[in-house]
Amino acid sequence: MLSTKELSQEIAQRIASLPLPARPAGLYEPVRYALEAGGKRLRPLLCLQACLACGGSAEDAMNAALALEMFHNFTLVHDDIMDGSDTRRGRPSVAARYGSNQAILSGDAMLTLASLLIADVPAAVSASVAAEFNEMALRVYEGQQLDTEFEHRKDVTEDEYFEMISLKTGALLATACRIGAMIAGAPEDTCRALYDYGMELGLAFQLRDDWLDTFGDAATFGKPIGGDIINEKETWMLITARRDSYGELDAILAEDLEPEEKIMQVTRLFNRLEVGERCDAAAATHHAKALAALDRAELKAPECKDFFVETVNRMASRSI
Amino acid sequence: MLSTKELSQEIAQRIASLPLPARPAGLYEPVRYALEAGGKRLRPLLCLQACLACGGSAEDAMNAALALEMFHNFTLVHDDIMDGSDTRRGRPSVAARYGSNQAILSGDAMLTLASLLIADVPAAVSASVAAEFNEMALRVYEGQQLDTEFEHRKDVTEDEYFEMISLKTGALLATACRIGAMIAGAPEDTCRALYDYGMELGLAFQLRDDWLDTFGDAATFGKPIGGDIINEKETWMLITARRDSYGELDAILAEDLEPEEKIMQVTRLFNRLEVGERCDAAAATHHAKALAALDRAELKAPECKDFFVETVNRMASRSI
Repeated sequence: MLSTKELSQEIAQRIASLPLPARPAGLYEPVRYALEAGGKRLRPLLCLQACLACGGSAEDAMNAALALEMFHNFTLVHDDIMDGSDTRRGRPSVAARYGSNQAILSGDAMLTLASLLIADVPAAVSASVAAEFNEMALRVYEGQQLDTEFEHRKDVTEDEYFEMISLKTGALLATACRIGAMIAGAPEDTCRALYDYGMELGLAFQLRDDWLDTFGDAATFGKPIGGDIINEKETWMLITARRDSYGELDAILAEDLEPEEKIMQVTRLFNRLEVGERCDAAAATHHAKALAALDRAELKAPECKDFFVETVNRMASRSI
Repeated sequence: MLSTKELSQEIAQRIASLPLPARPAGLYEPVRYALEAGGKRLRPLLCLQACLACGGSAEDAMNAALALEMFHNFTLVHDDIMDGSDTRRGRPSVAARYGSNQAILSGDAMLTLASLLIADVPAAVSASVAAEFNEMALRVYEGQQLDTEFEHRKDVTEDEYFEMISLKTGALLATACRIGAMIAGAPEDTCRALYDYGMELGLAFQLRDDWLDTFGDAATFGKPIGGDIINEKETWMLITARRDSYGELDAILAEDLEPEEKIMQVTRLFNRLEVGERCDAAAATHHAKALAALDRAELKAPECKDFFVETVNRMASRSI
């Protein structure tokens, strides 16, 4: 049995040796740059582990795993243009390094390269896997669209927030698990259970991400604390504080405050309303749902379950 | 047998009734807007006619035809962002109407919608058709990349120019024909012959496009004449004039001339060197090659040949 560390190394090695066309270098160099930035490789790991857990081989799911990682990085490349983000994982974003036109075109190439990879899975499931993949892609764009629309609203509900993150963040993690299970030939109930696991993991992931943006440690988090507050991003915490503060949140946001002062006043309100703790508790609920979904999956290799449990636990305590 | 006019109507009707998700409207409205702009629908027509010519049905090739049209329009949406083009087919471009961020995201959705459509062809050929489609997509990005790189160069050769347009313009027309033939189950020689037909048609199309930009009638062409000269675009005519004018072209371009004066002087040089006529002759050569390739195809429905011959003739005399 391959350990998660060995699988991670295999993924890194496969990404580094992807047979991209050599030229024009200007098109494919940004693709390599975007991919080599690393990250946790969570999506390909979920896909490989789901396949292994359901009795399949890592090799059978490898191209799907790479397609998911390629797709994820494609979304980051295009998101960074749309958000005007100059940095990504501590390096210049593709848009900052190569210009936004190049980031558009190289991102497009990454989406097509992902389509080529997702097609290259065992023939018996290739059509259904590709369909899952493409439907997931639409969900991710829909989530990105809702996220953008929320920027112009001050009345986003908790339900709308969860719809948005289930599309933008949850769908990809859920589909990664599901595709792994499909490639292993798992029955629909198990594919569904692992999909649900990935979805709940994604919701918890996003709640933790929002929490870290306000309550994380700047040194370990890797970006300045309070960015979401300054941008008045409609996070679960902001939505909850608005609902529960009887106008106080909107009064603070309506003032013409210096960024530091704005962060301090909103954080103080968060603390008084205990939205940080409640956000943590909401994340814990989704962790529990993830583990419950995992228990519904009939795994042929139960020893693989550890990875999924550990991933939930690591997510709950992550500070980065 | 369906006439080209009937096929065009069917394509228009299918595009208008594509079952796009209803929401978020902000994501899918720009997709509809981009598709409804119309145009000649040349790519889906080539695909359907190739399928019919090789003994297949229009219905079998319809989703592939729609995928090709979707892909083509996706490239226009993203190209208009990269080129800063505010108009497209006499209307605001998607980028101008909805903003460039929206154009990026809706364009991404169009590429994924094209992938969903291309997967939905008869199962016997769906894997090979999808592979052709995705490889073609990479070629189109590569052509766009080369076109961008040429903007910063003044030493592009004729060979490099033809490589660029074969990727950027030829590959899509060629693949449209090839996929139609593949869906009809045509033998490889015929698929190849129809691919070559589409490629030669594409090269002639681009040469004519370049010619029209300088020698067309502004009233019918739909955009101002001389844009390529002002932008010093590396067209076949500019490349040829540079090679044959012993420095005279570069001397004109090096002067600080008003746009009108620049167009006049370069056009005068073109006329003296007869590059307009030679561009026409080069296009005619590719028209002849297209017809020769067509003759190599073993068509099961020879009456369909007329469409391909007429398309070449229409292309040769088009003024729009």
